[in-house]
Amino acid sequence: MFKKSFLKKIAKQESVAPGYLEKNFKKGKIVIPLNKTKEIKKPTAIGEGLRVKTNTNIGTSTERREVEDELKKLHIAIECGTDTVMDLSVGGNIAKIRREIIQRSTIPVGTVPIYEAALQAERQKMTFEAMSFDTLWDVLVQQAKDGVDFFTIHAGILKKSLKMIQKKKRVGGVVSRGGAILSRWMYVNQRENPLYENFDKILELAKNYNITLSLGDALRPGAIADSTDRLQLSELYVLGELVKRCRKRGVQVMVEGPGHIRLDEIGFNVWLQKRVCNGAPFYILGPLPTDIAAGYDHITASIGGALAALWGADFLCVVTPAEHLRHPSIDDIKDGVIAAKIAAHSVNLLRFKEEWKKDYQISLYRAKRDWQKLFPLTIDEKKARGYRQTTDIASDICTMCGEFCSLKISEHCNLLK
Amino acid sequence: MFKKSFLKKIAKQESVAPGYLEKNFKKGKIVIPLNKTKEIKKPTAIGEGLRVKTNTNIGTSTERREVEDELKKLHIAIECGTDTVMDLSVGGNIAKIRREIIQRSTIPVGTVPIYEAALQAERQKMTFEAMSFDTLWDVLVQQAKDGVDFFTIHAGILKKSLKMIQKKKRVGGVVSRGGAILSRWMYVNQRENPLYENFDKILELAKNYNITLSLGDALRPGAIADSTDRLQLSELYVLGELVKRCRKRGVQVMVEGPGHIRLDEIGFNVWLQKRVCNGAPFYILGPLPTDIAAGYDHITASIGGALAALWGADFLCVVTPAEHLRHPSIDDIKDGVIAAKIAAHSVNLLRFKEEWKKDYQISLYRAKRDWQKLFPLTIDEKKARGYRQTTDIASDICTMCGEFCSLKISEHCNLLK
Repeated sequence: MFKKSFLKKIAKQESVAPGYLEKNFKKGKIVIPLNKTKEIKKPTAIGEGLRVKTNTNIGTSTERREVEDELKKLHIAIECGTDTVMDLSVGGNIAKIRREIIQRSTIPVGTVPIYEAALQAERQKMTFEAMSFDTLWDVLVQQAKDGVDFFTIHAGILKKSLKMIQKKKRVGGVVSRGGAILSRWMYVNQRENPLYENFDKILELAKNYNITLSLGDALRPGAIADSTDRLQLSELYVLGELVKRCRKRGVQVMVEGPGHIRLDEIGFNVWLQKRVCNGAPFYILGPLPTDIAAGYDHITASIGGALAALWGADFLCVVTPAEHLRHPSIDDIKDGVIAAKIAAHSVNLLRFKEEWKKDYQISLYRAKRDWQKLFPLTIDEKKARGYRQTTDIASDICTMCGEFCSLKISEHCNLLK
Repeated sequence: MFKKSFLKKIAKQESVAPGYLEKNFKKGKIVIPLNKTKEIKKPTAIGEGLRVKTNTNIGTSTERREVEDELKKLHIAIECGTDTVMDLSVGGNIAKIRREIIQRSTIPVGTVPIYEAALQAERQKMTFEAMSFDTLWDVLVQQAKDGVDFFTIHAGILKKSLKMIQKKKRVGGVVSRGGAILSRWMYVNQRENPLYENFDKILELAKNYNITLSLGDALRPGAIADSTDRLQLSELYVLGELVKRCRKRGVQVMVEGPGHIRLDEIGFNVWLQKRVCNGAPFYILGPLPTDIAAGYDHITASIGGALAALWGADFLCVVTPAEHLRHPSIDDIKDGVIAAKIAAHSVNLLRFKEEWKKDYQISLYRAKRDWQKLFPLTIDEKKARGYRQTTDIASDICTMCGEFCSLKISEHCNLLK
């Protein structure tokens, strides 16, 4: 699938031995989302023993269709260090937007093809419920040709899932947009999930273009009250089966996970996903350990994401402060990416000397109050500088402790390295 | 120490059985910081099996001396739900500022008396190194009379600690302000820590005024590179001994902890503190699992705080985004308190049905897109409303998914509770 020299380059970038990367890539414990029709500047590997990666969702909504804004989001997300983006556009000329994003992106781009298919059906037949697999197939093929690197495929939600949920209703219902679209489609048409029924065909396409499948968790809980419920777990078992089918066909696969999870269940969720999905990379959407913090859900997600990553989650989806409230602004995207990067780095520094050294260097400069050397190493140089610039202090101390600066005193007592 | 009726009231407020509260209060696993000379509107209990509490540090610095600003911080911190405040003033007329804060505070107020003593010595004798125990004692007595509810006492840093740190130097040195002042004092005067030498006398005062002692962790690591090092642990063992002396004398005591801790060592740190200090309430300062996020350390601290609380830490100290950069503004305080509250609530909802219900209610209203009922339940109503108001959408959906709103679709498929 990839040349040896390419894998070697990736191994170097990831600070792991080429043998380690190759072995675990073959086992499916590591994926490298990269459509075979193109090359990108910053490919990335996701999975066991590597740095925890982050993905940022961008894209228009039916209410917000400015492609320029989405390209700005792409730019800022990359600048802040996101490893991949997903174009989740559902408004405007989404084929054109996607191509623009792919063309400008230096990192892998993912999509959820069911969105475009649903939108086409709605535009052509007035309702997305009229979507046919033919429409969906055309979209999949077109997106593959356009160079999408990974597809979210919600093939784990089945007709029987709807019956389960109707019997024991959920507080949060189905919060996955793709999952909700498929639920409605199955409910109205009384037919099985077309992504599940045509999974082999999708595998063939994915194989031909080397598209990584990201198995969507359509039934992820969207409320703490639904955390780790039967529906979520029943879908996870279906995803575990689909992982096997992907691997058998030689298709790269990762698995998406919740969502809203109680803090004391996050570790278990990661453990179970790894177990049921045979070590497939775990792409986790948050998780949010509380529902009460709308407006601050980037913080909530960074708590959940850090804990999940510590337990072995490989890929964190950025949650912005606008989550649950509005389509994110450019600033929201920035805040979200940085919060996710803090979570990821908290774990990465435990695994890689190169990452640990960042903290070490900053601490050395901090102890010396060498602000000019410190700032460029922080996660957001401009922000850190800005805080200091609002103060009128000229000396090496800061306005917090002033002359009682503990570090200056430490220095005077000869306590510093 | 407290009347039975008062303990009963506190038990009710804490949603625990009066017998549970009383038993663990007697054992010292729960403290209720409240100076006996006064009453306050919102007393609080801190410790095992109770809601995780938060403290907010306010107070002037040598560079920022506006008492009005500090009173505004007091106000906003209480409004955002902090359970206690500490007045850490070291600038201006700090006796007057403290009295103002105590007078206006509806919640317990803590201080670090060594600050005032050092400042007095500096003002009278040109250097804080000239501080005598007499000065310190006068400050302690005056603060006790003023109605301070808890004192941070850095009695665990000893002369021999300085030798240890000089032998094996630390990246972050001593980052505790009180610890640094005492280090310098011991270094220059070549004498033992006066708080340690006079601990019995301090206990007597604390006993007389029912002041809770918060044993300061002067040697907490201030860098990931120093996480859980020998110095930190050697101080913890001294604190464990001091806890015994407090309890023997009938003085309420809690123990402060780091600081900067590797994410994978947070659980161990909490476990060890509880073990070494015989279950004394654990007041944790962060912890920060990475050093790279200056400007966003409220987020870093909420990751660390949530994990610490999950493992049993009882009391989280607010870290603001200005940490390491400047004296915090009023907005910084607000951001810090909310981040700490998110961390605390993520654990509290696991322990108390009353807390869990908040998430449950919000999720119900969220599923119904009943924004007007949802907003008042969120952690910051104004913020959540603000996000929605920036969008021009009038219907029940939001600009994120628009007509593809998963919850609206869930409703149409009869999937919601």
